[in-house]
Amino acid sequence: MLNILTNDGKSRRGEITSSHGRFQTPAFMPVGTSGAVKALTSEDLEQCGAEIILGNTYHLYLRPGAELIKKLGGLAKFAGWNKPTITDSGGFQVFSLKEISKVTDDGVEFKSHFDGSTHFFTPEKAIQIQHDIKADIIMQLDECVPYPTEESAASSAVKRTYQWGKRCLEEHRRQSAESNAKVSIFGIVQGSVYSNLRRQSAEHIVSLGFDGNAIGGLSVGESKNEMEEMLALTIELLPKNKPRYLMGVGYPEDILMAVSYGIDMFDCVLPTRNARTGNVFTSAGPLVYRNAEFAGDERPLDPGCDCKVCQRYSRAYLRHLYNQSEITAMVLSSYHSTFFYQKLMKDIRQSIVEKRFDSFRKVFLNKYEQGEN
Amino acid sequence: MLNILTNDGKSRRGEITSSHGRFQTPAFMPVGTSGAVKALTSEDLEQCGAEIILGNTYHLYLRPGAELIKKLGGLAKFAGWNKPTITDSGGFQVFSLKEISKVTDDGVEFKSHFDGSTHFFTPEKAIQIQHDIKADIIMQLDECVPYPTEESAASSAVKRTYQWGKRCLEEHRRQSAESNAKVSIFGIVQGSVYSNLRRQSAEHIVSLGFDGNAIGGLSVGESKNEMEEMLALTIELLPKNKPRYLMGVGYPEDILMAVSYGIDMFDCVLPTRNARTGNVFTSAGPLVYRNAEFAGDERPLDPGCDCKVCQRYSRAYLRHLYNQSEITAMVLSSYHSTFFYQKLMKDIRQSIVEKRFDSFRKVFLNKYEQGEN
Repeated sequence: MLNILTNDGKSRRGEITSSHGRFQTPAFMPVGTSGAVKALTSEDLEQCGAEIILGNTYHLYLRPGAELIKKLGGLAKFAGWNKPTITDSGGFQVFSLKEISKVTDDGVEFKSHFDGSTHFFTPEKAIQIQHDIKADIIMQLDECVPYPTEESAASSAVKRTYQWGKRCLEEHRRQSAESNAKVSIFGIVQGSVYSNLRRQSAEHIVSLGFDGNAIGGLSVGESKNEMEEMLALTIELLPKNKPRYLMGVGYPEDILMAVSYGIDMFDCVLPTRNARTGNVFTSAGPLVYRNAEFAGDERPLDPGCDCKVCQRYSRAYLRHLYNQSEITAMVLSSYHSTFFYQKLMKDIRQSIVEKRFDSFRKVFLNKYEQGEN
Repeated sequence: MLNILTNDGKSRRGEITSSHGRFQTPAFMPVGTSGAVKALTSEDLEQCGAEIILGNTYHLYLRPGAELIKKLGGLAKFAGWNKPTITDSGGFQVFSLKEISKVTDDGVEFKSHFDGSTHFFTPEKAIQIQHDIKADIIMQLDECVPYPTEESAASSAVKRTYQWGKRCLEEHRRQSAESNAKVSIFGIVQGSVYSNLRRQSAEHIVSLGFDGNAIGGLSVGESKNEMEEMLALTIELLPKNKPRYLMGVGYPEDILMAVSYGIDMFDCVLPTRNARTGNVFTSAGPLVYRNAEFAGDERPLDPGCDCKVCQRYSRAYLRHLYNQSEITAMVLSSYHSTFFYQKLMKDIRQSIVEKRFDSFRKVFLNKYEQGEN
């Protein structure tokens, strides 16, 4: 599914093919938790340059239900998004409901945050749901541990993730044979910040022969150094000819770091979540546009940005709308930050093609970290 | 400022010129209370076909303040809307804050709904604020009475509206001479549901020679028959060569009725306010798209609609997003209903040009009132 077009050091510029078409890598996948990226339309996402969006299995399973999405033709059709989609396995959300979830070797029991009803995800169930949702790429059920975690607990999660990975693959093959759908499945490497566990987990997951491999359990509270160290050692153990996906990451500086090691795919709620709290990403660093200092500022959010929001609206207007709790503020700021992330990925890809990724990274970060807004 | 292009019975198809360009009449003006039509962008409004938007003086005066809007170039520039704008006088909002407003011959005192601070709108102040906001069309301060109102109170409001109208015009001339801005000012006919008072108020207002004339105090709780009766007798007293604006109206059937008497301009929050509560306008009548019956409905909101929302999304998707409180539901439904209203006005204008307004009205209402969704 992955066609690597060119390399620059360890970073790679590729293209991934799915049954809903291709997307370019390294790719940033906006998160459409319940089937929509918050405050944006599918048309907005296209305009911003997004080529694949992520849906959260946990949310979609509870509302509107995987059965309904299946009946309506799958997530892409349901969301008016005629491009690739990916779903997580639901594990990350379920495990973050610490107080109301219970894990055993057979799976994880949890209560709905909507109505308190009890549900049980086995590895097989997580795969069945994702096949019903008809994403192009689905993820194995993994056990996510919080940070920090004792080595023994992290080790047991690694083992469970391995066992669940096998069962997920088996169920995936059964589902695929039944439906004839061309769906790809990715495994997930866990291991918290323990090098030996990361190595063990990578060996486990790679041995199962997934279509792609993800690194989970990072950007959950560990230091940036720890994250980089774990990423660096894990990625070396993942096959080069398959997609490598760093889950839940993140900030522009983290993405640039991870691309330098050869990561192909990212997802994160940051651009839109921050926008909704009055905080956008710009080429000169984060801008808290809700602040009083911008009340009379006629400049766009990012004077260097080509997005339609920056062509048309001032910080003063955005700040005013935000302070009036106008939905339009959420729409415009989410659009800008989504565009900013897609533009970053486009620039990264171009710099790899032109064998100047390192210098692009330096120049970008210099402005991003030193810039004045 | 009004160029009447053609008539069909009493209904008229015209064009109004302002310093931000022309707009076609009969026109429906979306309401951008705080400088944005809720959940929509200026680009959305353009796409829907809106040519003029209305800002609420009361809201803009309190936040972000008329001074700031003036400094930033006026409402159109502030909102990234390069087309005509109109402001109300603030009177309607202030009078609806019954408990916290106090009216005297000199003006109206009220408390901000934001912070309880006390403010005083004199006729002069209402005009100064609107000149600061730099709308293309501004409104006189009028006294709005609720429905029902004793004849004596309605009569005293008519007299006050007349006195205030004179003072507004005088201040408007002073402001216009000072700034050299080409701003139009409209007077407002009051009189509740009392024919004699409506006649008296119309004579008052017309005698002052405003650039356009509005009918206020309708669609505030009276019956549809009362509204039509008051409109019919009032409009006959208004000059034909000037714009005639029916304030705060309304439903598609009310707009069609009023156009048949020769009204040129309308404004109302209905399309977007209803959309945000799960209720859109369609050619087959209102559709409560949040209802459970649409959970699996693959049809667009309005199968007969050409808007980009109806080209792409199902009722099932919209209903799901609404139930998840997704901002995207507000965006898509507000867009559709705004498009629907603009399309209605476009069809009305075309039917007048083709001298078939009456039959258009009948056909439209037949489907709208009998249609099945």
